[in-house]
Amino acid sequence: MSSQTSVNPDLAKERKTASFDRENLTEVIYGGKESVRRRRYLQNLAIQDRYLQSFPPWWNMDRETQYDVAVKKSVYLNSLVQKLNLKNGAEMFYLKEAASNQETNPLGLHQIMFIPTIEKQGTKEQIEKYVTPAKQFKILGTYAQTELGHGTFIRGLETMATYDPASEEFVINSPTITSMKYWPGSLGKTCNYVILMAQLYTKGKKMGIHAFVVQIRSLQDHKPMPGVTLGDIGNKLGYEGMDNGFLMFNNYRVPRDAMLMRYAKVERDGTYVAPRNAKIAYGSMVYIRALIVGDMGRSCAQASTIATRYSAVRRQTEIRPGGPEPQVIDYQTQQEKLFPMIAASYGLYFTGIFMGLEYNRVTADIEKGNLEEMQSLHALAAGLKALSSDIASDGIDKLRRACGGHGYTNASGLGKIWANITPACTYEGENTVMYLQCARYLVKVYALVATGKQLPGFMSYLNRSGKQQSSLTQALNMEDFVDLYEHTAARLIKVVAIRLQALLKSGTSVEEARNLCGVQMVQAAKMHSYAYTVRTFNAVIQARASDPNVAKALTSLCQLFAVNGILQRLGDFLQDGYLSGQQAAMLADKQLALFADIRPNAVALVDAFDYPDQVLGSCLGRYDGNVYEALYEYAKNSPLNKQDVLPSYYTTLKPLMSGELNFDPPTARM
Amino acid sequence: MSSQTSVNPDLAKERKTASFDRENLTEVIYGGKESVRRRRYLQNLAIQDRYLQSFPPWWNMDRETQYDVAVKKSVYLNSLVQKLNLKNGAEMFYLKEAASNQETNPLGLHQIMFIPTIEKQGTKEQIEKYVTPAKQFKILGTYAQTELGHGTFIRGLETMATYDPASEEFVINSPTITSMKYWPGSLGKTCNYVILMAQLYTKGKKMGIHAFVVQIRSLQDHKPMPGVTLGDIGNKLGYEGMDNGFLMFNNYRVPRDAMLMRYAKVERDGTYVAPRNAKIAYGSMVYIRALIVGDMGRSCAQASTIATRYSAVRRQTEIRPGGPEPQVIDYQTQQEKLFPMIAASYGLYFTGIFMGLEYNRVTADIEKGNLEEMQSLHALAAGLKALSSDIASDGIDKLRRACGGHGYTNASGLGKIWANITPACTYEGENTVMYLQCARYLVKVYALVATGKQLPGFMSYLNRSGKQQSSLTQALNMEDFVDLYEHTAARLIKVVAIRLQALLKSGTSVEEARNLCGVQMVQAAKMHSYAYTVRTFNAVIQARASDPNVAKALTSLCQLFAVNGILQRLGDFLQDGYLSGQQAAMLADKQLALFADIRPNAVALVDAFDYPDQVLGSCLGRYDGNVYEALYEYAKNSPLNKQDVLPSYYTTLKPLMSGELNFDPPTARM
Repeated sequence: MSSQTSVNPDLAKERKTASFDRENLTEVIYGGKESVRRRRYLQNLAIQDRYLQSFPPWWNMDRETQYDVAVKKSVYLNSLVQKLNLKNGAEMFYLKEAASNQETNPLGLHQIMFIPTIEKQGTKEQIEKYVTPAKQFKILGTYAQTELGHGTFIRGLETMATYDPASEEFVINSPTITSMKYWPGSLGKTCNYVILMAQLYTKGKKMGIHAFVVQIRSLQDHKPMPGVTLGDIGNKLGYEGMDNGFLMFNNYRVPRDAMLMRYAKVERDGTYVAPRNAKIAYGSMVYIRALIVGDMGRSCAQASTIATRYSAVRRQTEIRPGGPEPQVIDYQTQQEKLFPMIAASYGLYFTGIFMGLEYNRVTADIEKGNLEEMQSLHALAAGLKALSSDIASDGIDKLRRACGGHGYTNASGLGKIWANITPACTYEGENTVMYLQCARYLVKVYALVATGKQLPGFMSYLNRSGKQQSSLTQALNMEDFVDLYEHTAARLIKVVAIRLQALLKSGTSVEEARNLCGVQMVQAAKMHSYAYTVRTFNAVIQARASDPNVAKALTSLCQLFAVNGILQRLGDFLQDGYLSGQQAAMLADKQLALFADIRPNAVALVDAFDYPDQVLGSCLGRYDGNVYEALYEYAKNSPLNKQDVLPSYYTTLKPLMSGELNFDPPTARM
Repeated sequence: MSSQTSVNPDLAKERKTASFDRENLTEVIYGGKESVRRRRYLQNLAIQDRYLQSFPPWWNMDRETQYDVAVKKSVYLNSLVQKLNLKNGAEMFYLKEAASNQETNPLGLHQIMFIPTIEKQGTKEQIEKYVTPAKQFKILGTYAQTELGHGTFIRGLETMATYDPASEEFVINSPTITSMKYWPGSLGKTCNYVILMAQLYTKGKKMGIHAFVVQIRSLQDHKPMPGVTLGDIGNKLGYEGMDNGFLMFNNYRVPRDAMLMRYAKVERDGTYVAPRNAKIAYGSMVYIRALIVGDMGRSCAQASTIATRYSAVRRQTEIRPGGPEPQVIDYQTQQEKLFPMIAASYGLYFTGIFMGLEYNRVTADIEKGNLEEMQSLHALAAGLKALSSDIASDGIDKLRRACGGHGYTNASGLGKIWANITPACTYEGENTVMYLQCARYLVKVYALVATGKQLPGFMSYLNRSGKQQSSLTQALNMEDFVDLYEHTAARLIKVVAIRLQALLKSGTSVEEARNLCGVQMVQAAKMHSYAYTVRTFNAVIQARASDPNVAKALTSLCQLFAVNGILQRLGDFLQDGYLSGQQAAMLADKQLALFADIRPNAVALVDAFDYPDQVLGSCLGRYDGNVYEALYEYAKNSPLNKQDVLPSYYTTLKPLMSGELNFDPPTARM
């Protein structure tokens, strides 16, 4: 927290103007005094660790170095986790987050995908055989699903695993170029094992996608196994420390027990035994998507912290000729860029937490045989994963642009945060596919409502009816916002459901009708997901913020989240007259009034997320506000400054200036 | 154009379905048969040049290599331009664009800023002294304006040039850390001269910002001059081949004739002579901003070409179980991502051209003493620069996300195109500042309208009044769109003008009142700029597209540009009831109908921009559609694949797996 260095006076002033106790808000965010204490303790361990701090930030590193540093840091961190005997997921996360400098972890998938998949889908013997050495890092694994030609559409995967009863082996092949595994993290260079998702063929029949544990590199010298071709897929947008890889097989044989057989089985003679329940992954998808929603909130919070602090430090453009230049944060147009994103940070972060709790509650219900709520939660999780990653990806890039020129340098840290989260728009289900999945559920239950069915939980808003006009007034009651959002979501669902029915009645096939309603389905799913976020944001404030000053500050943010969401999609709210033009004008004024309310709290609201400088990795977002000194230090470390005069001068510029330019004839020819 | 290799059958099919002759459209875009022929001739020279083609694409290069390649290519290209005796700006651009592979040109600012500034602002002697050697590349210059603390607000620059009459020299100093020059292109490593923008002090008085020609590196050995500290500013988002630099001065002395003295002067004794006309740069800002609008159109066109071709090749997700996977471009939701951007490409490109013509026309008027239209064009250019770069930056990133996972690899080319243009949101005037500049003019002329003044040219829409309801019908007449946009722009201008007046009447200062209206001013300027683009897009089609099939295809795009713009900001159009809820619903339906109209033409519409693969620099956007083979080739060239087994294995992974991990105690300690 750089408490020793002197803090920029503008930032120091901002920290005194807040209307609430910052620490109380930090406790609301992280769940109480003790969690905040543990979080800081673990962060400080990482920040003060001499080995971890011996690596400079990623800012000016080439790709090879970034990968090497990422491997070293992640291996070291795992040993630290063991030494500290950390078991709690949040605690491990805090330690790693503080150590990472926004870098990726090439051993992450080993722990969150490779081991858990075997634990869930393997037999007792398979768990013993693979998980035990994996936990001791004797083997290193990842999860190889995505192929060059298919990602979200899993049934389209082409990698073949053909059972050969003669040898009791599977023969693995990559039959086409598009069947090449492409993108799996840690696959290119780090791992020697994978969970391979492949089409199972036995007795001449295709039995669908199954999971296999497959060795891909030698345990002796780490060279690729014979019959296996693999490598890194090359440079990309972000994730420079990660070796996303490609992988192909040519008649590569693995034993029968390579297939994870807790559910589906292939017997010695090749007989296929189907699993009893095909929807095993239903719950865990919800869980992972809930985690993504929280991640998006965290990344928005980090980016908001950087942009808000910098906007308090940065002074620009005399308002009166010759007068002092105001802090950029005092411009209303800058507030419009910053404050809705601070609001979104809290909204998404709280929604992520709440979904995690809902997941636990609904999972318990499932064990009692009640699947209904899981279905609505599954649809919601798809919609929210998409909405939250869209908000984060678009919003963090806007925050970067809100930092002027310095937003563009790696030293801003904003580009890296953005590059780390924008893939969330695609992984774990491409966003448009997610919205459509959500919308298909909404349209389906809408039809049930028409038959008089009462929907459970948060879906029950579709049962409401009768009101003709939003009650929203200057008081900006949250109940009125929730009602307005839910009314509008219900209207959009109704519009597309009716259109879909009309198409079906006119003889259009289901598939074609759905396609012809695609744009409207996405629109309905977005509104449904936003409505849930508004409702949840408010519910978490009610439940958690016992300090009235904290509650008041958060409520302003929640109102802004609601108002801004309406103004962004104003047409959807106005179109049926439920919201009037006068109410819309009132909201536009109220948004400006909320900016003024939030203004004195802005820095404290981002400070409350309590991100150390080491997590932010930004010259602009420093706690002490000493931005310009940091940017100069950053510049000095440019890779182009290793030498004062670069080779290009001798080879090219000098001959140009002295008129002795001569391009080598064998290579240069018109 | 890879005409030898076999073209993906899906793409070949698309090229047969277009309702117009593609070549005719290409001629509309580039201004006739002869320009198209010259463009291709010059592109082919670059594409077939063995020296230029000896460099691989930038995809997997580190920063040092990218800079070195950029220097070599730009020097070689300049010699080629001389050999070919090219004089026409468009022709030079075509040659360089085809050779660049989306890389930047470290000698570009020498030619478009250093030389022209001296030519415009220097005396005859200064032109002789500096421009002559500069044109022979005996000296290499750039333009150093932006500082660590100030960019768009030029009056805030702090670099000092203090005249010393004793020695008849200027003493140049960087008095604060924020006064350091930071960001100028080609400054860090390439140039030995700069145009330095600095505060002039003479006889103890500050005389404002003036331009000086200053040597920064030795002509003997390229080392920094004594008293000069400089270097590259480090890695950043894009522009890897460019050495954006920092620069500081410590009592650095330059002769009196270093100051460009065509207008302002400092005499031998230090007497300051003010320029006769302070607004010299007025016109050239309009010109440069018009060029940016066209650039944004071109970049949107390149990105649309990539995303559209890939969406025609990519097949995903069975619509019916077991059925064939459709082309992604057949999904309505994908059309919503692609087609509005194809429309924006044409809209912005045509608007850029038209503004260039307007600039010439209005410049001629100025010489007759008529400044009025230049003011409205100046305001418009500010708004359009901002609108076009916002559309391009947001839109190209959305196109990247529309390409699924492969959008994220450097091989998509989309990230580079985006990184090349997103700085346009900030350079040549930060976008929010630009919108506000535009809006201040709009509010000012709105007040004149109230006094009965008739406004000139495209501003005259503010004189219109009386109509209560948009005439827009299913026919989607362009006149009705223009009327609707202009009505809505006028309404937004009126709303903010009234609010501003009310604030002033209540005693708020002008500066504070403007700040309190900032968000609404931006909104009004955006609508004004969008309205102009809709009007211009249509006008260019009417003027240029003589082939009726081409005109029809372009009109569908223009209608989509208008409809999509309304649906994106529907609230603004609905709020006063000028557009009704029924009309809005009709437009939503019509947008889908336009998607269906455009669908068979989509590939031909992007093909018509006629970008060779070498310009696009994309595995996904290849003319032949052989996407997957190209991605595999790309992967093999990853810097991490230079060795099968990387050093990280020996240093870290192997010890981890064998249980012999031992972090070096002197550096590793808790």
